[in-house]
Amino acid sequence: MKKIPAPSKKRLLTIASILSQKKKTKITSVELSELTGWTDATIRRDISLLELHTGVSNGYNTEELKDFIQSALSINLQNKKNCCIVGLTKLGEALLENSIFDNSPFKIVAGFDTNMNRIELMKSNLPLYPTVDLEEKIHSLKIEYAILTVTDDRAQNIADRLVNYGIKGIVNYTNTILTLPAFIKVENANPAFALALISSEQ
Amino acid sequence: MKKIPAPSKKRLLTIASILSQKKKTKITSVELSELTGWTDATIRRDISLLELHTGVSNGYNTEELKDFIQSALSINLQNKKNCCIVGLTKLGEALLENSIFDNSPFKIVAGFDTNMNRIELMKSNLPLYPTVDLEEKIHSLKIEYAILTVTDDRAQNIADRLVNYGIKGIVNYTNTILTLPAFIKVENANPAFALALISSEQ
Repeated sequence: MKKIPAPSKKRLLTIASILSQKKKTKITSVELSELTGWTDATIRRDISLLELHTGVSNGYNTEELKDFIQSALSINLQNKKNCCIVGLTKLGEALLENSIFDNSPFKIVAGFDTNMNRIELMKSNLPLYPTVDLEEKIHSLKIEYAILTVTDDRAQNIADRLVNYGIKGIVNYTNTILTLPAFIKVENANPAFALALISSEQ
Repeated sequence: MKKIPAPSKKRLLTIASILSQKKKTKITSVELSELTGWTDATIRRDISLLELHTGVSNGYNTEELKDFIQSALSINLQNKKNCCIVGLTKLGEALLENSIFDNSPFKIVAGFDTNMNRIELMKSNLPLYPTVDLEEKIHSLKIEYAILTVTDDRAQNIADRLVNYGIKGIVNYTNTILTLPAFIKVENANPAFALALISSEQ
């Protein structure tokens, strides 16, 4: 399969989520266009990148299309990827307690913070560790991805350590833009950055 | 100016943030490439979309480039855009208390929740209102953008109401993929979606 460009990947992921939410057995690109706001031509082109060769004339089979997108984007709900949350700030704590990962292909297996007091006082169903144990736990718990919720001034330093310890990608909720090797994938998900993306008149 | 494609817009926003963090007066596309992992050709092409006609041979003037990107993407730190947080879940509360908007062109002016008890008990420097006041407050406080942190099952309903009341865009932290008119801009920033974007091998 050819490399899928980032915007197509984002649209395909959105389409897969929509298909999970729908009860219909068939869906057309025109219906997907109404649900997403993208043109049906864009949607058909994105789906064509998957090299799926069935059911284009009278719509896609919902379940098949969803499975196909998930498999192309290596999403596997049966074999969840281990992740951690680094920085038990209010935001980090909120993500830790959240059930948002229940139906996702990800599993939060640990939380880290430098403040031992905070770790001891915090109530969580998940194991919490001091940041000094980061390297050991990343290896022993087979953690592949990190959600970064430390304070802005510590973000780059912690990100560098995560990369040194073998993390493949980081979801960055801090306001610091991270400078990391090109092979590390980073997604900036802090609200100010997301607002800037939607608010420009461009 | 020609329309700037979404991936370029995202890179330019990232570059503007990096320039804000740097103390240097000049920066080259090669240096920006080292900091971001994108090729210097990609960076030069993105910047060329802004139709900035100075200082390409020996680097860009840091301050000028930052201002130029911000102005092209209608980012104005002096004239902040009013935003609200809808859904004072743990995540909503964390974003409300956060100082993450201090240096951004956005200002959180209100929080909303259906639970009157929660609103009364919650400590916040920002005004909190019941969701029933959404329409009135969006108009009286001139709120343009919303951060959605309600529970997944209520997300679509609240998003529809926000759109009816004149909101221009939504940063969606729920797991629900929203179905909204094409002119409403939505950025999905929930951690499971962000992880899916960085973890696919594609």
